[in-house]
Amino acid sequence: MLTRLLILAGLIATLPAMAAESGHKYIVNERPGITTPLPFSDAVVTGNTLYIAGTLGLDPATGQAPAEVKAEAQLLMDAVKKTVEKAGFTMNDVVSITVFCTDLKLYDTFNGVYRTYFGTQLPARAFIGAATLLRGAHFEIQGIAVR
Amino acid sequence: MLTRLLILAGLIATLPAMAAESGHKYIVNERPGITTPLPFSDAVVTGNTLYIAGTLGLDPATGQAPAEVKAEAQLLMDAVKKTVEKAGFTMNDVVSITVFCTDLKLYDTFNGVYRTYFGTQLPARAFIGAATLLRGAHFEIQGIAVR
Amino acid sequence: MLTRLLILAGLIATLPAMAAESGHKYIVNERPGITTPLPFSDAVVTGNTLYIAGTLGLDPATGQAPAEVKAEAQLLMDAVKKTVEKAGFTMNDVVSITVFCTDLKLYDTFNGVYRTYFGTQLPARAFIGAATLLRGAHFEIQGIAVR
Repeated sequence: MLTRLLILAGLIATLPAMAAESGHKYIVNERPGITTPLPFSDAVVTGNTLYIAGTLGLDPATGQAPAEVKAEAQLLMDAVKKTVEKAGFTMNDVVSITVFCTDLKLYDTFNGVYRTYFGTQLPARAFIGAATLLRGAHFEIQGIAVR
Repeated sequence: MLTRLLILAGLIATLPAMAAESGHKYIVNERPGITTPLPFSDAVVTGNTLYIAGTLGLDPATGQAPAEVKAEAQLLMDAVKKTVEKAGFTMNDVVSITVFCTDLKLYDTFNGVYRTYFGTQLPARAFIGAATLLRGAHFEIQGIAVR
Repeated sequence: MLTRLLILAGLIATLPAMAAESGHKYIVNERPGITTPLPFSDAVVTGNTLYIAGTLGLDPATGQAPAEVKAEAQLLMDAVKKTVEKAGFTMNDVVSITVFCTDLKLYDTFNGVYRTYFGTQLPARAFIGAATLLRGAHFEIQGIAVR
């Protein structure tokens, strides 16, 4: 009994220490079509939380957003999903999303694609009309996941 | 003594398990005046943190922002407060706010309303000039609360 | 042995209580050149997380952004660093940054300054073209740090 207790207490005692010692984990994806080094990670894991960088839907051949908006939205959501999963999270762990969009008339088109990446329970989300985005993008997404 | 220790250790031992098992809690308010289903929750609770979706100040009769800007700011802050409290938090738990605003000349008007929703200690806040917002809104707020 | 266990269990037992009791800590810097009281804190600490308010690079003599863009970026990053360190964090603790920028042509100029404030491992970051920013600013940064 005492032995079990000791093991239990020992296990528990390591928890705060692990938390204190665990640094952040930086996720940096390959960036096809982009030649300059960019000063950000694609995501950072800290504890049970994942901070997802502003993500664009880019054509890997050009490093620019494709002409077709629905294709861009799909590339974007695929990129978000890839980052989330590479970090060891799932899309169901995503709790907060900010969508920046250069044209609010694309709201329904974007939503149609966006919805297919989640189950029935959806992250909190803001949808903001941005003036401009990098690389010819119509959409940029930033988010937070917690597991 | 051993019994007390066992109870204590047992209680402690359940903590990590509870954390691992506790899923997110999704807050979805009624959306008067809005006929389409929208792909987001109004807030998500995870652990002791609340992620508040981009919130607008809408006239429930129309689903659009009212013509009068101060009324819109009040509807908006009422909507944020309602969501925060529905999730079991208070406005004093809000730690971070982002205000997106289509016209920076509305800064003082907005601040006048905003201030009345908080005590003496105020959340960190960004105030960003957005190009456009949905539903004729002049303001959209996104935030995080921690209790 | 039992005594050690008791001490250990006692220490562990206090952890949840400490977490529950720790309120938020509000960081409010002096705001040279700004005469009106502004309704936000410059940062809020909650637990091991720091929420950094939207920060501008302002000339302390005028309370406005300087004419020269690189100088503005440096004032901005200095202001962020000051807030982060005042809160007891370091720039290496920063996990997420959102940059709002009124002119995407300033991307490289901004990045050149930005990079010098971090080590080899960089925060997740979004870079958004805003319509306008307060006080003549070209850049506004919001962020989250975790230690």
